[in-house]
Amino acid sequence: MSPSPSQRPIGVFDSGIGGLTVVRALTQVLPHENIVYFGDTARVPYGPKSPQVVREYALQDTDVLLKHDVKLIVIACNTVSAVALDVVQKRARVPVIGVIQPGAEAAVAASKKKRIGIIGTAGTINSGAYTNAIRLIESGAHVSGRACPLFVPLAEEGWTDHKVTELIAKEYLFPLTLEKIDTLVLGCTHYPLLRDVIDRVLHHSVTLIDSGAATALVVQRTLAELGLTNASTLKPHLRFLVSDIPNKFTEVGERFLGHKLGKVERDGGWGA
Amino acid sequence: MSPSPSQRPIGVFDSGIGGLTVVRALTQVLPHENIVYFGDTARVPYGPKSPQVVREYALQDTDVLLKHDVKLIVIACNTVSAVALDVVQKRARVPVIGVIQPGAEAAVAASKKKRIGIIGTAGTINSGAYTNAIRLIESGAHVSGRACPLFVPLAEEGWTDHKVTELIAKEYLFPLTLEKIDTLVLGCTHYPLLRDVIDRVLHHSVTLIDSGAATALVVQRTLAELGLTNASTLKPHLRFLVSDIPNKFTEVGERFLGHKLGKVERDGGWGA
Repeated sequence: MSPSPSQRPIGVFDSGIGGLTVVRALTQVLPHENIVYFGDTARVPYGPKSPQVVREYALQDTDVLLKHDVKLIVIACNTVSAVALDVVQKRARVPVIGVIQPGAEAAVAASKKKRIGIIGTAGTINSGAYTNAIRLIESGAHVSGRACPLFVPLAEEGWTDHKVTELIAKEYLFPLTLEKIDTLVLGCTHYPLLRDVIDRVLHHSVTLIDSGAATALVVQRTLAELGLTNASTLKPHLRFLVSDIPNKFTEVGERFLGHKLGKVERDGGWGA
Repeated sequence: MSPSPSQRPIGVFDSGIGGLTVVRALTQVLPHENIVYFGDTARVPYGPKSPQVVREYALQDTDVLLKHDVKLIVIACNTVSAVALDVVQKRARVPVIGVIQPGAEAAVAASKKKRIGIIGTAGTINSGAYTNAIRLIESGAHVSGRACPLFVPLAEEGWTDHKVTELIAKEYLFPLTLEKIDTLVLGCTHYPLLRDVIDRVLHHSVTLIDSGAATALVVQRTLAELGLTNASTLKPHLRFLVSDIPNKFTEVGERFLGHKLGKVERDGGWGA
């Protein structure tokens, strides 16, 4: 017996580990949804790579999820959401939700002065995707972006409360403080792990927007609108697939997910 | 007319940009050699990835170089040299030289107390390749390794003389100072860019070994032994190929090579 449409899993993909912060947010607002996660750990990171290559990879990642009969796809990766949302939406036969639009909406809603900062990978910042999304909602908004390439390796190294991380955060965020932002979008899945140090460096005076958390709420609303919310109250099935062998993913991933991962499988679906 | 065997290029490959420090060392000791370089910028970095995936990628990179009729292959990447030298040697029909053995030999020669430290990526350090190579030369050597995952992003960010880099270097290198090393192998192509800060943190009291420079000397010797040194005194042809589009490679690469790169071409030979 095939599962009812609402019991089919949500598909989530990311360049690697970071998207687990989005899975965490999803499980908090949608505790009964089955989820299949794919992390392209054999080719991570996407942030410094060209839009052309990221688009190629995003389509291959989408195909991995489509094999698992997902009812909706969440692009957890900000870089992919910034440069490849259109090609993924064209390929998938199901609704596709990226993290940029939900993050932009949450930022505009939160910002009193409409002075908004964006931090992310070079790929995300150079794309201008957040700026465009925010200006479509609030054309007069003042938006400043800053790429923070060292934040991802710092988060993966686990130096989330290290004096070095605070110094680096000060250097990266100083130009944004000059812009007198009142709201800052954490435009990379790794950055929620650095939330405390970012908040401290900004003297607790800037509202921090976690695009992943904002996206989880949009997914919740979309499923409800489409009648695809899983009515079951059984413990859901979470499945984790990666393109490299899972050792490091399992070890570091638990910090990102916030609890034990369980079994992680390798899916080299695109050729590894 | 096809070129004489000695006029054929040396092939050099790396996971990305870092191998340009090895090209720089090669051009210093072998100023008349033609060189074809391939950087797998679409999948960089290899350091945090599993040995299995690195071996798959190394074979694909080798095939790119073999298409260019190279007379010898240099594996500039320490991670690849550590975990995939055997498979590359089996695939190539030409001599293959990795950076581990030359680095190990240079370290043993330089170390008075035979107390040697190794720094590199997680992949290089976890492989134990340097330790094994050093112990085969000097069985009683005391060898200590330390993975330094933040050094690569710091070098790529250009923070080669930043107080943050000094703090990070202190933290990474402190355990090695406790081991009373007198020689330290810079076991990653990016690390020569951080030589000054590493030297300062170690109070100028430890001999630093650049595996790339040691490898260039071995290449020089090998070509002479095989009668393959290019006798031409014309300006050599340096050709740079990358798997992602070249923008970032060109910009950052000049810091690594030490001079202008000229034209950089995309070769998605393995499928990009």
